[in-house]
Amino acid sequence: MPRLAIIGLGLIGGSLGLALKRAKLKDLEIVGFDLEWGVGSNARRKGVIDVEARSLAEVAEGAAVVVVATPISQMRRVFEEITASLGEGAVVTDTASTKLDVLRWARELLPEHVSFVGGHPIAGKETSGLDAADASLFEGREWAVTPSVNASQSAISAVENMISLVGARPVLIDAAEHDSYLAAVSHLPLIAATALFSLAKESQAWNDLGLLAGPGFRDTTRLASTNPSLGHDISLTNRENLLHWIDRYVEELRRYRALIADATQDELYKTLVKVRLDREAFLEKPPERERPSTGVDTGSAGDRMLSFMVGEYVVKRTKEIERMVERRAAGDDPGRKL
Amino acid sequence: MPRLAIIGLGLIGGSLGLALKRAKLKDLEIVGFDLEWGVGSNARRKGVIDVEARSLAEVAEGAAVVVVATPISQMRRVFEEITASLGEGAVVTDTASTKLDVLRWARELLPEHVSFVGGHPIAGKETSGLDAADASLFEGREWAVTPSVNASQSAISAVENMISLVGARPVLIDAAEHDSYLAAVSHLPLIAATALFSLAKESQAWNDLGLLAGPGFRDTTRLASTNPSLGHDISLTNRENLLHWIDRYVEELRRYRALIADATQDELYKTLVKVRLDREAFLEKPPERERPSTGVDTGSAGDRMLSFMVGEYVVKRTKEIERMVERRAAGDDPGRKL
Repeated sequence: MPRLAIIGLGLIGGSLGLALKRAKLKDLEIVGFDLEWGVGSNARRKGVIDVEARSLAEVAEGAAVVVVATPISQMRRVFEEITASLGEGAVVTDTASTKLDVLRWARELLPEHVSFVGGHPIAGKETSGLDAADASLFEGREWAVTPSVNASQSAISAVENMISLVGARPVLIDAAEHDSYLAAVSHLPLIAATALFSLAKESQAWNDLGLLAGPGFRDTTRLASTNPSLGHDISLTNRENLLHWIDRYVEELRRYRALIADATQDELYKTLVKVRLDREAFLEKPPERERPSTGVDTGSAGDRMLSFMVGEYVVKRTKEIERMVERRAAGDDPGRKL
Repeated sequence: MPRLAIIGLGLIGGSLGLALKRAKLKDLEIVGFDLEWGVGSNARRKGVIDVEARSLAEVAEGAAVVVVATPISQMRRVFEEITASLGEGAVVTDTASTKLDVLRWARELLPEHVSFVGGHPIAGKETSGLDAADASLFEGREWAVTPSVNASQSAISAVENMISLVGARPVLIDAAEHDSYLAAVSHLPLIAATALFSLAKESQAWNDLGLLAGPGFRDTTRLASTNPSLGHDISLTNRENLLHWIDRYVEELRRYRALIADATQDELYKTLVKVRLDREAFLEKPPERERPSTGVDTGSAGDRMLSFMVGEYVVKRTKEIERMVERRAAGDDPGRKL
């Protein structure tokens, strides 16, 4: 029976297990392992995984797809310890919030006969750990996919299909771009929220500030409750981008400072109007990336993932679909010729 | 019948009307007026007010309490136009997000025989206008109370009782302190959120940034959708405090920048841990101000407000309560002598 391995059974790994279970794939065995003692057996009892492995070496053995969902700081070690167990053609993916370092570790440590396809689900909660796992965590979310240069097309498809199966949308993106973009819309907001909270909290007037802080303060500082290890790992592995965006943010705050200091504030008013309209438009209709539709629904995405796991079938199938998409793009689509 | 006047029937004024109606006070007539044509009659149809006045002069006539809930930028004009109609001993309050300028306008423009007691409900929504009004908007929220120096104790009590009636907690505070504190926990977060959004939006990579922006980005930038007129009025009337807190925020961001740039990031990790714990403690139990308990529940708060409106009774009552509280504080409480 094809095996999928999940290493790290916290919020992300646990939610992935639950979501895959909910997809009710026939003939898929989910094997799991967590570096923390007791978490693996707990996950098995909760139905997050089918089988608990006893070691990192064992969990990767015979797995067609290995998902590394540990904290970023442990991924290097995980790669080292699973390397010898990875079979020919296995697909390794991860769920880290930063991608360049992870890809570098994969290139250094994983064997040639393995395809590494990085991944990052844009989903989360302030709560962490297996107990916070939730089968619907990924529903409707984007999931960045950053393949290594030598990843096979079928490996990329397998990861994309897994993502579709749990209700998320795969977004194929270059790892360097990913880290640069996420620094702007995820890592900078984390630091902005944290600094906003600590500034108020460390003020001598905190008792009064906290008393008068309303829902706006709570929402704006929500990310200050992010798991500190995650925040730390992100800033270690995406340092240059984060520093760059902090600098740009400080410049932007200075621009607002000047608009506020200006006596008439006409420009401030215009700016606030534009930002509000822009944000409404963003909430109404976030930017989308045009992706060729393969016409594959969730059910057959499951089929395709399984297909990949049992061999070369999916390579042929993927090529068929690509040809289909190309034909459709060229206008050669019988269904649309009216 | 005692009259309460509400000037400005938008989100705040409308919600106040609905909340007072829900408190089912006997013998209270709510008269309303809005500078925008049609809003007053709409409010009457919706049961937000009992009577629609035809002018600013008329709405204040014979009112025991006048609540000015217009945008800050219109309050000066409102004070000018109601002055001649305000009766002996009338109480005027407002709902503006900044307080020092409003108190100054009140001192300049309102007659001597009127008590001005500033107010600021720490509650709101991104949506504005009468249609967004909600009887439960103030429930469980703080409501800052900033009396003018010559406001009578009974006038302060009347405003505090009105606040209790709609489910909020009155917080007596100096106007200058209010503006300084709110700059930190409300006006700075508004600018921080706005700058964070516009920085991403104006980036050349916005299409990708927006695509990869998750719920964290949305929450952190929520305040960027604040009514632009409100943001503009706040920054005009609380400019110095806001500039001060923007500068402190920039310094705090620089502190984080240095922690991130540091090779080991040990201090960064410790800081992130502390901030998370602090924020959890804040959410669990926000700072509270010790206030003498008067043992008065919402029902009798209604009685007291009415009492004030019909005369001097409440002054005596307030003094009785103060003496009670003093006796209790001195241990002279028969109920606790065991």
